[in-house]
Amino acid sequence: MINRYSTKEMMGLWSDETRFQKWLEVELAVCRAMELSSIVPVGTAEKIRKNTILNPDRILEIENITRHDVIAFLSHIEEQCGDDSRWLHLGMTSSDVLDTSFAMLLRQGFEMVISDVKALCVSCAQKAEEHASVAITGRSHGIHAEPTSLGNTFALWAAELDRDILRLERALESISYGKIAGAVGNYANIDPEIESVALSMLGLKPETVATQVVQRDRHAEAFGALAITAATCEKIAITFRHWQRTEVSEVFEPFGKGQKGSSAMPHKRNPILSENVCGLARTVRGYASMALENVALWHERDISHSSNERIIAPDALSLTQFMVRRLDFIVSGCVVNHERIKENLQRTGGLIYSEAVLIELVKTGMLRQKAYEAIQRCAMSAGSGGKSFLDLLLEDETVSTALGEENIRRCFDLAHHIRHTKMIITRAIEPVFQKYGRKQND
Amino acid sequence: MINRYSTKEMMGLWSDETRFQKWLEVELAVCRAMELSSIVPVGTAEKIRKNTILNPDRILEIENITRHDVIAFLSHIEEQCGDDSRWLHLGMTSSDVLDTSFAMLLRQGFEMVISDVKALCVSCAQKAEEHASVAITGRSHGIHAEPTSLGNTFALWAAELDRDILRLERALESISYGKIAGAVGNYANIDPEIESVALSMLGLKPETVATQVVQRDRHAEAFGALAITAATCEKIAITFRHWQRTEVSEVFEPFGKGQKGSSAMPHKRNPILSENVCGLARTVRGYASMALENVALWHERDISHSSNERIIAPDALSLTQFMVRRLDFIVSGCVVNHERIKENLQRTGGLIYSEAVLIELVKTGMLRQKAYEAIQRCAMSAGSGGKSFLDLLLEDETVSTALGEENIRRCFDLAHHIRHTKMIITRAIEPVFQKYGRKQND
Amino acid sequence: MINRYSTKEMMGLWSDETRFQKWLEVELAVCRAMELSSIVPVGTAEKIRKNTILNPDRILEIENITRHDVIAFLSHIEEQCGDDSRWLHLGMTSSDVLDTSFAMLLRQGFEMVISDVKALCVSCAQKAEEHASVAITGRSHGIHAEPTSLGNTFALWAAELDRDILRLERALESISYGKIAGAVGNYANIDPEIESVALSMLGLKPETVATQVVQRDRHAEAFGALAITAATCEKIAITFRHWQRTEVSEVFEPFGKGQKGSSAMPHKRNPILSENVCGLARTVRGYASMALENVALWHERDISHSSNERIIAPDALSLTQFMVRRLDFIVSGCVVNHERIKENLQRTGGLIYSEAVLIELVKTGMLRQKAYEAIQRCAMSAGSGGKSFLDLLLEDETVSTALGEENIRRCFDLAHHIRHTKMIITRAIEPVFQKYGRKQND
Amino acid sequence: MINRYSTKEMMGLWSDETRFQKWLEVELAVCRAMELSSIVPVGTAEKIRKNTILNPDRILEIENITRHDVIAFLSHIEEQCGDDSRWLHLGMTSSDVLDTSFAMLLRQGFEMVISDVKALCVSCAQKAEEHASVAITGRSHGIHAEPTSLGNTFALWAAELDRDILRLERALESISYGKIAGAVGNYANIDPEIESVALSMLGLKPETVATQVVQRDRHAEAFGALAITAATCEKIAITFRHWQRTEVSEVFEPFGKGQKGSSAMPHKRNPILSENVCGLARTVRGYASMALENVALWHERDISHSSNERIIAPDALSLTQFMVRRLDFIVSGCVVNHERIKENLQRTGGLIYSEAVLIELVKTGMLRQKAYEAIQRCAMSAGSGGKSFLDLLLEDETVSTALGEENIRRCFDLAHHIRHTKMIITRAIEPVFQKYGRKQND
Repeated sequence: MINRYSTKEMMGLWSDETRFQKWLEVELAVCRAMELSSIVPVGTAEKIRKNTILNPDRILEIENITRHDVIAFLSHIEEQCGDDSRWLHLGMTSSDVLDTSFAMLLRQGFEMVISDVKALCVSCAQKAEEHASVAITGRSHGIHAEPTSLGNTFALWAAELDRDILRLERALESISYGKIAGAVGNYANIDPEIESVALSMLGLKPETVATQVVQRDRHAEAFGALAITAATCEKIAITFRHWQRTEVSEVFEPFGKGQKGSSAMPHKRNPILSENVCGLARTVRGYASMALENVALWHERDISHSSNERIIAPDALSLTQFMVRRLDFIVSGCVVNHERIKENLQRTGGLIYSEAVLIELVKTGMLRQKAYEAIQRCAMSAGSGGKSFLDLLLEDETVSTALGEENIRRCFDLAHHIRHTKMIITRAIEPVFQKYGRKQND
Repeated sequence: MINRYSTKEMMGLWSDETRFQKWLEVELAVCRAMELSSIVPVGTAEKIRKNTILNPDRILEIENITRHDVIAFLSHIEEQCGDDSRWLHLGMTSSDVLDTSFAMLLRQGFEMVISDVKALCVSCAQKAEEHASVAITGRSHGIHAEPTSLGNTFALWAAELDRDILRLERALESISYGKIAGAVGNYANIDPEIESVALSMLGLKPETVATQVVQRDRHAEAFGALAITAATCEKIAITFRHWQRTEVSEVFEPFGKGQKGSSAMPHKRNPILSENVCGLARTVRGYASMALENVALWHERDISHSSNERIIAPDALSLTQFMVRRLDFIVSGCVVNHERIKENLQRTGGLIYSEAVLIELVKTGMLRQKAYEAIQRCAMSAGSGGKSFLDLLLEDETVSTALGEENIRRCFDLAHHIRHTKMIITRAIEPVFQKYGRKQND
Repeated sequence: MINRYSTKEMMGLWSDETRFQKWLEVELAVCRAMELSSIVPVGTAEKIRKNTILNPDRILEIENITRHDVIAFLSHIEEQCGDDSRWLHLGMTSSDVLDTSFAMLLRQGFEMVISDVKALCVSCAQKAEEHASVAITGRSHGIHAEPTSLGNTFALWAAELDRDILRLERALESISYGKIAGAVGNYANIDPEIESVALSMLGLKPETVATQVVQRDRHAEAFGALAITAATCEKIAITFRHWQRTEVSEVFEPFGKGQKGSSAMPHKRNPILSENVCGLARTVRGYASMALENVALWHERDISHSSNERIIAPDALSLTQFMVRRLDFIVSGCVVNHERIKENLQRTGGLIYSEAVLIELVKTGMLRQKAYEAIQRCAMSAGSGGKSFLDLLLEDETVSTALGEENIRRCFDLAHHIRHTKMIITRAIEPVFQKYGRKQND
Repeated sequence: MINRYSTKEMMGLWSDETRFQKWLEVELAVCRAMELSSIVPVGTAEKIRKNTILNPDRILEIENITRHDVIAFLSHIEEQCGDDSRWLHLGMTSSDVLDTSFAMLLRQGFEMVISDVKALCVSCAQKAEEHASVAITGRSHGIHAEPTSLGNTFALWAAELDRDILRLERALESISYGKIAGAVGNYANIDPEIESVALSMLGLKPETVATQVVQRDRHAEAFGALAITAATCEKIAITFRHWQRTEVSEVFEPFGKGQKGSSAMPHKRNPILSENVCGLARTVRGYASMALENVALWHERDISHSSNERIIAPDALSLTQFMVRRLDFIVSGCVVNHERIKENLQRTGGLIYSEAVLIELVKTGMLRQKAYEAIQRCAMSAGSGGKSFLDLLLEDETVSTALGEENIRRCFDLAHHIRHTKMIITRAIEPVFQKYGRKQND
């Protein structure tokens, strides 16, 4: 984990302290389940809980000798609880502890991320509402296409984030499985009933068929869901980077007091937050690919997945959370330059209405091909000789004969183009507000 | 697409013929919807359908001039239908046709793959049932661990494939969205009602918020689901490769009459089908990563996703289908070498029962640490001096004093170790049979 | 391979015909080497060459029975040459043929690509020369930074392509290794001398230590070099996409007569060639990742690399070649809009000279922090109230007191900013012309 | 960076302390170069060096306000050095400092890694020498193929590592470029001479054509070289995992005193070090893919590469170094089980000599096809009925008539099969020893 891009909560979640704490919870849940099955004297779990103070440093010290982390952990408890500790880990294998506690950690991590994605989704929905009737140039291939509404873009993001939430929630379900099933997953030395009771205490379900470990297709799905969420973040961020280009200047990232844009050029306001998000999205994308390589383990398991999971589990969750929060800051605080938006709409001298003219021509009975060529002719010479696209259409015999001036002018109607955007936005954001509520304005 | 690893059906699906056919279906569905809205004269769609014979070569010829595929396609129809053709593509943009028809193609492709995965899942479930009571060495880290059942491994795969089916079906839903919403997705020149009617004729739903295109997070999810399925295939295949190792020789791929293993070494029977699957899984994994890069398009769309989708959509579906079918052949026809399985179980001279002894010792009140060391001592010298692990345990003071001979011998009970496997297998395969039925034996 | 993005030469190279032809060359080279060592009767190779007509269909027919491609190939020759054919493949294993011929195919493929990259490199160098003195806005973060020369950008690409050529040539060397060393690479049944003579006839060197195969780190390097070249292509293409944005409109892709930009919007000229290149770069990037997974084979080899190499070797080479050629078309034919370039330079009202003012202030002894804040103050209010950045600087007490009007005005000198670009360009392109020559203008 | 898999040196290299130290070195080198050009008063750099005590915490504090790291750093110096500090950063942009110092850090990191790879390469070479004459089963597809020498495998690794070293050294050269060329890389406010003098003080060369940054194809190459090295590590590790499988048991990882293999099964010795390496190789592979996405920056640069480079630069170097050192421990301390190696050689009852018989038969004039079938027939029934492969060959009419008993028996000669391995090994390791020397035995 990199401090620079991690929240305190997420760093706390992936600390040694929390990890060992989860291990203890798993061991005690199993111990307690065994008490209920009269295998272990009633009260043992409680006694151990009271007598144990986890000291990560001491555990790592022991691990340096045993080269085995769970055994070191158990020895650490044995040092403090003596005889009682023999009731721990009965019939269990290390992976019972590790994979079950890993599921607990992942669950918490995903819950944090989901909650932040919901917040971002709501921010986008609110911005969509706010800017529903702001006309702006729509662009495909980076080229001015037809007018649309600024609200649409925010609604687009809200709708996609809502799908991300669905995928993340499925991922959360997918990794909510533990196992207390022994060395090769077949309950050789422990009863399935114990697993069932203990896992339910921990908020988990038993893996359908385990090997020594919970199966890694679950984790591949989970990291995949994070990578798609990260890609949505990248998509939002790249739009801000385009919007903030000097030539476009339509919408800006918030820019703090005292912030400096460039050490050399005092005039600059760079979209560095958005650029940062783009770079991090590449990282999370790479992690998803690693997780896919972890699915095919040897026989009842090999431990090749473990080393990279130690890196990518905290990092993928942390970076995704960081991106999502950063974008929420950007979206919520973004500055809209209405004047430039209007200027840009005029920039092509009406070329963005060419489709409307095409359709009207076709409606008169003209073949599409012919209509297309007439309009393309006017479009390509627009601007040269000081004549606008509209001027040229009005002068063009094919076009003006077919449509007449009034009809031609009617095609250049901005309001007409965005008459449906409110409906689109409402369709997208209503479910968002219903599911996740609204935010108070800051 | 590579012939070697593609089925006829899949190659047919991704042919130029089928693609243009789907384009026509989309255009006609929109035309028909417009007839119902009295925008277009009733009967137009039917007339065009009758008068059009699609000729891919001619379309590509026109495209060489226009450098635009949909315009070439429309010109091709215009050549055949004349005037009527002006009612096609009204208020639409190319992507309305391309993305909607792409959804139709993807749907069919995913349905094929899902059907094949179901078949493989059932084959695994049936093999699980067949071999439920076959004891076999469980291995972790490639090292003999504890005995388990051969059926377990097949059940493991059935359960994972069942999760793959769930993910694939969600992916199928995710890509079942089309759009007939115009150049920037805001119905500037077409009514939302037309989209709704036309898409429903085609078995699709409207994109919540579209830009010029259907959003690519949907496709990223879909390719991700294929990559996880491919990883499951890799996992099954890698197990066969291990099983068939000369030193293991427990289960074999089917080996055809007349098949040759090596041009140099006539004795060889190589697990080449399984190795082949492993290699292809790497490929599909790579495609998922590309699809993630396609999410963040510029503004209302750029066309950078298109070139790689032309490659990875057919290839990812085709390779996954191929792998799944190949594995079904392997699983259904696999040859189990029961003798070697029994021999291998004996190979460690009982070391695989060490955990059972450990637990019994702990139950007597011995500290886990002490018990562990005693057993490790015996285990590490087993084999040397002709003494088996059991012999050494019986001789060991710590162990034999604590347990007595009879209790020690009772730990070496194979049946005891796999007493729960039937339950595990049933738990996994019953839902499979209920959902997907059973196969007749070939 | 996908026809759409493949050249004829490259498709020919990866056809069944060529592949079998290379196999025959390898077998005959070994046979000839054995003649020279008096193991095989002199003239055998020549006789087989004369009597063999390769028929790919027949070979595939036989393979369907033997399920082994090289054995099928040998049987095919046996059908035609009878007895003589027993002198083929002596002491060899299939991989001796496959890997050695694969090296031959790869070599030819890389040579084609390298030759095309050289041509693109020269085109960039020539454009750099042509536009060396065209001042254009330099941009960082998408924001106007300081003026630079248009030629610089082309020189940048020429310099990077020259590094790509170096990497590709090293990759070419890296895969120019064959092996005729038998089933486990230790010449058990063939003499090292035979390998050495045969490979030298084929233009290859012997693998230092082979297993059954030539080692795959060589191929990983080669696909990596292609992926970096593809990334350079992406970089060039993304710049064209930015240049061609409506708001920027500085440099354009060539746009053919009769070409259509959008089926809906006749006015559009989209940078589709460049977008296409960006999408393909993602694909080649994915292939490099697959090739890295092929390095770690089991023991003396497993065949998992083979299936994906059948896909990625032709595809990675073909797509890279296609991209490079497409870019050469774009770069050579690009249209520069000098007027817009000048307009854009003025767009910030001189803000792009802020660094020059900063430096002058610091030189007077002012602390950087103080100077920075003064300039940022002027920069942030430029434009509002109709006052330009220069106006505000002249009015600003801190600035004007320190520098005086004349010095302030001197900072706004375009020529001064690009006084070094000719040197930079020359430094970059001279070596290019010396190594690869110049092109005639079309 | 993850402590668990990082060395102290590498963590020191990527600490805030070191980073700021390198920044200072860059600023002072430029300042000194300006002194030599009489732009800055002589002695300034020396004075600043003396008066500056870098305090990372304070710098981060300032950055929290300015949101710009280099400006924070400069302010920190200004706080300590007052007026003199105005001579720093003159005509420079942040990236001049960042990219130049990044090159310095990368150089040191690569040098560390290269030195460790050399050590591992030598260890492999020495093991190759030690075990040159140990016959062992060669395996392809996991199936016994033909005998080979254990030394061959170590030589294979030495040869590949030697290629890795070459690639790493080229990568080192590739990233040894800095830039002091201003905001858009064209020396607008600084003289090229200053760059040239300053970089040479720092052991770097000037980027041929820079934008605001050093070009990222260089870094893509560097991370690619690490990923291939990591793949070599994976390859070595996977062989150890196979060797240590219970059924194979030929060569073992060192196993420490007090080390525990499994918390449940006291008998186990798991190849966890090798498994760990395999998992980390997946991670470094993923990083290479991210670096490829950083090549195509916008115009004169965007900063999207920066966030992921902060993660992958330290991590990729650190993990690769860790893997290489871990493998050196494994290779140097590996335990060879000669008895099992011999047993395994016998395991197929001589099937591994089948090729030798095939060749002898072909030499008598028999057609390959016929000879192959005869041997395959014997091979497939070997073992059943208590008859060995040799027995069956002697009984087989086709074979025994053609060859006679003596000739058949001669094919079963182990020494003959490995007669060339000494030459192969020598050919591979001699250059290694010459370049990197030998290690003393521990």
